[in-house]
Amino acid sequence: MNRLGIALVGVTLGLTAQASAQDVKEDFKSMSTNQYGQEYPMVNSQGIVRGRILAPGAHEVFLQINGINYPMTKDEQGYWMGQSAPLDEGNHYYGLVIDGANVPDPASRFLYGSGAECTQIEIPAHDDYKYALRDVPHGQIRELYFHSDVTGGLRHVFVYTPPQYDANYTTRYPVLYLQHGYTENETGWSRQGRCGFIMDNLIADGKSLPFIIVMENGEISHRADNAGFGTLMNNANTLFPKILIEDVIPYIDSHFRTVPDAAHRALAGLSMGGMQTRSISLNFPGVFSQIGIFSGGVISAQDIEQHPEFKKDNKLVFISYGSREVENPRGQAPNETVSDLKAQGLNAVYYESPLTAHEWQTWRRSLYEFAPLLFRK
Amino acid sequence: MNRLGIALVGVTLGLTAQASAQDVKEDFKSMSTNQYGQEYPMVNSQGIVRGRILAPGAHEVFLQINGINYPMTKDEQGYWMGQSAPLDEGNHYYGLVIDGANVPDPASRFLYGSGAECTQIEIPAHDDYKYALRDVPHGQIRELYFHSDVTGGLRHVFVYTPPQYDANYTTRYPVLYLQHGYTENETGWSRQGRCGFIMDNLIADGKSLPFIIVMENGEISHRADNAGFGTLMNNANTLFPKILIEDVIPYIDSHFRTVPDAAHRALAGLSMGGMQTRSISLNFPGVFSQIGIFSGGVISAQDIEQHPEFKKDNKLVFISYGSREVENPRGQAPNETVSDLKAQGLNAVYYESPLTAHEWQTWRRSLYEFAPLLFRK
Repeated sequence: MNRLGIALVGVTLGLTAQASAQDVKEDFKSMSTNQYGQEYPMVNSQGIVRGRILAPGAHEVFLQINGINYPMTKDEQGYWMGQSAPLDEGNHYYGLVIDGANVPDPASRFLYGSGAECTQIEIPAHDDYKYALRDVPHGQIRELYFHSDVTGGLRHVFVYTPPQYDANYTTRYPVLYLQHGYTENETGWSRQGRCGFIMDNLIADGKSLPFIIVMENGEISHRADNAGFGTLMNNANTLFPKILIEDVIPYIDSHFRTVPDAAHRALAGLSMGGMQTRSISLNFPGVFSQIGIFSGGVISAQDIEQHPEFKKDNKLVFISYGSREVENPRGQAPNETVSDLKAQGLNAVYYESPLTAHEWQTWRRSLYEFAPLLFRK
Repeated sequence: MNRLGIALVGVTLGLTAQASAQDVKEDFKSMSTNQYGQEYPMVNSQGIVRGRILAPGAHEVFLQINGINYPMTKDEQGYWMGQSAPLDEGNHYYGLVIDGANVPDPASRFLYGSGAECTQIEIPAHDDYKYALRDVPHGQIRELYFHSDVTGGLRHVFVYTPPQYDANYTTRYPVLYLQHGYTENETGWSRQGRCGFIMDNLIADGKSLPFIIVMENGEISHRADNAGFGTLMNNANTLFPKILIEDVIPYIDSHFRTVPDAAHRALAGLSMGGMQTRSISLNFPGVFSQIGIFSGGVISAQDIEQHPEFKKDNKLVFISYGSREVENPRGQAPNETVSDLKAQGLNAVYYESPLTAHEWQTWRRSLYEFAPLLFRK
């Protein structure tokens, strides 16, 4: 899996696959990600997805999941049906190809990912209690717009406040700044990532301290200007740290009841957001004291040598990957790098999500493991 | 336009229309509702929409807007192009029909309406400054989940807090409870309705007092159980008032800095939400003192006679319609009914949105006129 975090390159490849009909368990249920009242798409206990679309005049229709095309066949009423191979647990990109047109399945719900609002499906997971919507006290997801001096325009930011935030007006909270990946935006962590539900559950179960989470757009431009890859990367590497440190943190510290110091400020991100976390924490010492890098590289022993202030300030380095991402590491395996950091005296933690790849299930689980470690020292 | 608020019955009709090519101005621009970086769909200064989709294997493709099918034609590369007749200003439901399959246009953005998440387009309006995203101080749109004793489950509610809400912790605010229409949900007013931007603009321009807005789901069930129309109407008429009065208002009053009395509490809604507003304000006196009914009927002189407490408590009755809805009234024209209320001594106001029908542009304008009148007495 490449480190630039191009998670979904398969979407553009349009590979075609045959799903085997043998041994398919007929225990299909409507998916949790369906639009209200829609029977299809369905999923069975093996993670096989079965989709349906009415397209009486069509000649060739595919179910497309994570860039793989699964053939569909038409019945007498004009409904096309098709099914996938077994899929990993968690969130997957999903759509239809109708006579060559790539379109969303109108029966499925929409989220922003892979560079666009698109349909996504959710394969039930053995550990979906971590991010389930439970009848416990809930925090709020707040949508903000505010002026940025750096860009001269408005920033669009989502903020999670914990359940008791409005219960009294004296308690102050630490803050986690939490970043999405390449081709995603500021909506990703609260929607696909379900970070609000993860935090509500952890807090209700006494596993995490309550804290504020701030989610910015690390691609800056919203891809609105059709910026090329170079511009995007320059924005992500150069402009984003400036916006974060000069605009976002001061705004949050003056509009929320934060503890406005590095000891109570963490930074984490997935994929490109993890790379941004690494770069910002090394190059801007004294802003954040605890960091998480999910599927986005590592802090190495050499990094520590080159940035001595990092070690002085840092209280937590959390590194995670999906197990399918690190089966064949190109260089040092990330768990070995983390061992090196520990040997240097850092509070370094490695987590590996079982049987998942460069995808949201890895990152939901990463947050679930990371949050309980935060703001303990 | 029927009073049950079935705004979009045309969507299911699939009517086909020919757009005239004559006198089409070639000043097309990408629509504001496009996905990031998408050139099409486009709109010109006459409100004509031009759509495009790559579907090389397709045989018949239509652009579908508000239930009307506009034919598209294919070029050598397999792109289909088509254009609509001139459309009214504001928000319209939009999609494609590809060889008989009704699908969203993947180039356009998604909102919940007409019973599903779907694509919608925005025809530029002469008065879109009312709901534009401006660089002024912004309130927050907050997403909440909380336990309902009435249903035994969770309620999903959006709350607008005005710009200065978190600036000090002593100011208390009045509350407007604001309801969507049939086949819409609790997301409608902050997304299609743009109520946050409308309020931010009114407050920045000194035209409205700041207040909190609460947006609940008036269909209760999220249509999840494929409830029939009877169940939906029963929920809307019987269960919704109970949830609103027994669960939502107490929750809001205990979790936000409200002024918790009828003098500082208003209720308004569009279409079905307007009918709910009428029914609740007549049958539950002493809860709300100011009401707005947008394209959802009227309070009549007979209503006042039958509910004498209404007149005693009420400080504002605001009634509005789109001009295209009231061109041929079946009974008394709503402006005449409002005149009757004034003659009875009520503070009654009528507003008619020029050249719009049973659609969001009418309701955005209605809120823009209604909000400045609220909480003045």
